[in-house]
Amino acid sequence: MNKSIILHIIGWILTMEAALMSLSGIVAIIYQEKSGFAFLITMALCLVIGVPLVLHKPKSNVFFAKEGFISVAMGWIILSITGALPFFISGEIPSYVDALFEVISGFTTTGSSILSDVEALSYCMLFWRSFTHWIGGMGILVFILAILPMAGGESMHIMRAESPGPSVGKLVPRMRTTAFLLYIIYFGMTVLQIVLLLIGGMPLFDSLTITFGTAGTGGFAIKNASIAPYSPYLQNVITIFMFLFGVNFNIYYLVLYKKIKVAMKSEELRWYFIIVISAILLISLNIGGFKNFFSSIHHAAFQVSSIITTTGYATFDFNTWPTFSKTILLGLMFIGACAGSTGGGIKVSRIVILFKTLGKEMSYLIHKRSVKVLKIDGKKIEHETMRSINVFFVTYIIIFAVSVLLVSIDNFDFITTFSAVAATLNNVGPGLEVVGPIGNFGEFSYFSKFVMMFDMLAGRLEVFPILLLFAAGTWKK
Amino acid sequence: MNKSIILHIIGWILTMEAALMSLSGIVAIIYQEKSGFAFLITMALCLVIGVPLVLHKPKSNVFFAKEGFISVAMGWIILSITGALPFFISGEIPSYVDALFEVISGFTTTGSSILSDVEALSYCMLFWRSFTHWIGGMGILVFILAILPMAGGESMHIMRAESPGPSVGKLVPRMRTTAFLLYIIYFGMTVLQIVLLLIGGMPLFDSLTITFGTAGTGGFAIKNASIAPYSPYLQNVITIFMFLFGVNFNIYYLVLYKKIKVAMKSEELRWYFIIVISAILLISLNIGGFKNFFSSIHHAAFQVSSIITTTGYATFDFNTWPTFSKTILLGLMFIGACAGSTGGGIKVSRIVILFKTLGKEMSYLIHKRSVKVLKIDGKKIEHETMRSINVFFVTYIIIFAVSVLLVSIDNFDFITTFSAVAATLNNVGPGLEVVGPIGNFGEFSYFSKFVMMFDMLAGRLEVFPILLLFAAGTWKK
Repeated sequence: MNKSIILHIIGWILTMEAALMSLSGIVAIIYQEKSGFAFLITMALCLVIGVPLVLHKPKSNVFFAKEGFISVAMGWIILSITGALPFFISGEIPSYVDALFEVISGFTTTGSSILSDVEALSYCMLFWRSFTHWIGGMGILVFILAILPMAGGESMHIMRAESPGPSVGKLVPRMRTTAFLLYIIYFGMTVLQIVLLLIGGMPLFDSLTITFGTAGTGGFAIKNASIAPYSPYLQNVITIFMFLFGVNFNIYYLVLYKKIKVAMKSEELRWYFIIVISAILLISLNIGGFKNFFSSIHHAAFQVSSIITTTGYATFDFNTWPTFSKTILLGLMFIGACAGSTGGGIKVSRIVILFKTLGKEMSYLIHKRSVKVLKIDGKKIEHETMRSINVFFVTYIIIFAVSVLLVSIDNFDFITTFSAVAATLNNVGPGLEVVGPIGNFGEFSYFSKFVMMFDMLAGRLEVFPILLLFAAGTWKK
Repeated sequence: MNKSIILHIIGWILTMEAALMSLSGIVAIIYQEKSGFAFLITMALCLVIGVPLVLHKPKSNVFFAKEGFISVAMGWIILSITGALPFFISGEIPSYVDALFEVISGFTTTGSSILSDVEALSYCMLFWRSFTHWIGGMGILVFILAILPMAGGESMHIMRAESPGPSVGKLVPRMRTTAFLLYIIYFGMTVLQIVLLLIGGMPLFDSLTITFGTAGTGGFAIKNASIAPYSPYLQNVITIFMFLFGVNFNIYYLVLYKKIKVAMKSEELRWYFIIVISAILLISLNIGGFKNFFSSIHHAAFQVSSIITTTGYATFDFNTWPTFSKTILLGLMFIGACAGSTGGGIKVSRIVILFKTLGKEMSYLIHKRSVKVLKIDGKKIEHETMRSINVFFVTYIIIFAVSVLLVSIDNFDFITTFSAVAATLNNVGPGLEVVGPIGNFGEFSYFSKFVMMFDMLAGRLEVFPILLLFAAGTWKK
C-alpha cells in the first residue's frame, strides 16, 4: 500500500475543506454570529494538518484500485471528523457524536437529522449543514480532481471509488476533464435552481440552502416542517430539480454536446421515468381515490421525486398515508436514482441489470445451453459487471440485515428500526414512525448512531471502500 | 415440450393423492365422522382423472430440465386444487379460496392458516391438514420416484426441481435408490418422534398430527394455542426434532453408513449449529436478562428451532418479545434450514456461499488479479453454482418486494404485511402482529391470498419451477 500518496490526498481534502468552510465564515460575518469563530478554529486546525501533508510530495506514484478505495474511505471519514467540529465547538450540537452523525448525514447526502428543532441553529451553521450536501453530492475528491493537477494514474481509481453507479462513464478520454465537466454541469444546474426559487419569492438564504440540499439530493431543510411552508410554485420547482439531479450526469453532457439521440437511448433514463411516473400515479390513486386523484398528484409527485432520488425533503407527513403508498416509497428508497447522479440507493441501472439476469436465467432454464447475451443501451454487459452487481446487491442486503439487527437492540418499534436503517443506508433521510418526516434520529443510542453512520458512508461510497477499510487483508504487507 | 410425459406424471400424482387420502378416510371411520364422505368424493375424482392418464403411456421419453420444472410446478398445483376439495365439500372451510390457501400452506409445509378456530375442525380434516405437511416435506414426486419404476432420465430433473437446496446430492449413483433412502430416513425419524411423544403421554392422534407437522417442518397445530398446551418434556422433544428435520438428510445417510467423519466435515451443518446456538443465547439474554437467562432458554430454543427450520409451531406469543428478539426471528425466517432438509427459507448453505463470494470480492479488490478459489466442504464451488445462487437470491428478494407491494393494498399495518409475506415465502407459517402466533391469515383479501399462495409455492419449489410455469417462453414451440 502506498501510504504516502494517501496521506497526500488527505492533506488536499483537509485544505479544501478549510477553503469551503470559509463560505460559512462569510455567512457568520453577514449575520454577525458568534458561532462563526467555531469555523475559524476548525479551519486553522484543517490547515495546520493539511498543508504540511500537501507539501510533502509522495515518494511513489504507484496507485491501484486499493489505494483509490482507501483514500476515498479515509478521506470521507477525516472530512467528517473535522466537519463536525464547528457544530460541537459552537455548542449548537452539544454532543460530539451527534455532531458527527449530523455532518456524515450531510456529506453522504442522507439528510437524517438528530435535531428536533432545526430552526434553533444559527445561520452560519444552517449554511454549513446544507453546504455539506452540495460538497458530498458530486464528491469532494472528484472536486479536487477537477481543479488540481494530479499525476495520471490515480484519477480513474478515485473516480471509480467515489462516484455512484456500477461503472464510471468517462465523458472524455481524460479523467480530469471529465471531473471538471461534471462540476460545471452541477454548478450550472445549481445556479439555475437558485434563480428559479428567487423568482418565486423565496429569500436568498433559503434559496441557497434548499438548492444545496436538492443538488446533492441530501434533504436537510432549514425549517422544522421541511418544505411544507413554501408555496406550491416553489415546491414544484424543487420537485422538478430533485428529479433532474437524480438523472445520470452523462445525459446532460450528451445533451450539451447535442447528442440528444444517444441520450434518449439510455435504458436507465427510460426506466427511471417509468418508475417515477407509475409511482406518482399509483400513490395519487391510493391517497386520493378517483375523486381527488388530480389534487393528490402534487404531493405524490413531490414525495416520489424526493424519495427515489433519496433527497428526503417532505411537504407532507407520509406516515399518515395508507400502507400501499408507504410500501411504494420504501421500495423507491432501495431502487434509488440513476447511476452517475448525486442520488443514493441501489441505482436504477443495477436494478434493470438484475432483472435482466433473472430473464437470462429463465431463458437458460427453458432452452438449455442457449447463451443469451445481456445488453444495456445496445452494448453487451460484461460478465465482470454482472458479477460485481450481483455481489454488490448481496453485500447491500447483508449490511442492511445486520444493521437492522444491531439497531433493534434499542428496542424501538419494528418499523422505526427497519426504516431508519433503510433511510440511512440508502442516504434518504427520513424513515417512518419515530424517524418519519416530522421525527428525528436523536433518540437512538450512540451505538445505533455509529451503526447508521457506517451505513450512511457505506451507502454513499457504495459499500466496498468502507468495507475494505475494515478488512484485515487491506493492512497486511 | 414433451406434454404427454407431463400428463403421465400428473396422472401418477392424482392416483397417489387418492391413495394417501384414504388414511384420512380411515380416521373418519374411526371417529365416525360424516365429513369422511368428502374424502370419498375427492378420491373418486382423483382416480377418474388420474388412472387414465397413468395408463396412457407417453409417446416419448425425452425429458429435460424444463419438463422437470413444469411437471413439478403443475403437479403441485393440481395436487393442491384437488387436495383442497375435502375441506370445501364437507363445508368445514366454506370458501374454496380459503381451502386452497390452507392446503397449499399444508403441502408447502408453510403452516399459515386462515382458520381462527382450528379446534372446530373434525378429526379427519385435522388429520388431512397435518398429513399434507408430511407429504409436502420430502416431496410427492420424490415419493413417487422412490416407489415406482420410471424410465431413467426424468428422475434427476424431477429431484432437482422438487428438492430444496442449491444442488442435489446423490446419495448413491441411482436416483431412484436415493429417493428411496431419503424416504426411509424420513419415515424412520417420523416413527421415532411419534414414539417419544407417546412415551411423554401425548394422545396418539396428537402425536401423529404434530409429528407430521414437525417432520415436514410445516407447523399446523391441532390446538388454537399451538404447542403451548403440552408439557415441557413434549415441547423439548418437538424442539429437538424440529432441529433434526432441518438438517440435510445426506448427513443422516452418512451417519447410517458410518461415515461420521465425512458428515462432521459439513460446513453447512457447522454453521447451522452456530446460528441456532447464537440465536438461542441472544434471545434468552434479551427476553430474560442475566437474571432469568436460564429459564428463558426453554422458550427461546423452541422458537428458534421452530423459526429457522420454518416449522412455525409456537409455545409463546413472540409478538410480545422485544424488537431485538423479533428481528433475530425474522432473520432466521430468511436464512432457513439446511439444503436437502424439509425446511424452507434461503438455506444455510446458500447464505454461507453468499458470504464467501463477498469475501472473494474483497480479496479481489485488495489483491487485484489474485483469483481465490471458493471451497465448501473442501470442494471447489463451481462457477455455475455460484451464479445460480446469486440469481436465486436476487429473484427471491424481487419476489419478496413485489409481494409486499401487492399485499400492502389490503392496508394492514406494515409489520403484518411484511411479516405475512416473509412467513409465506419462507414457508414459516406465523408472522407478526395480525398474523402472529395467535393470529391468522383469514382477514386478507382473496387477491392477497392468491399472492401468498404463489409465494408459498415459489418458496417451497425454490422459485424457478413456478416462475417458468408463467413464462411465455416456456409454452412457445
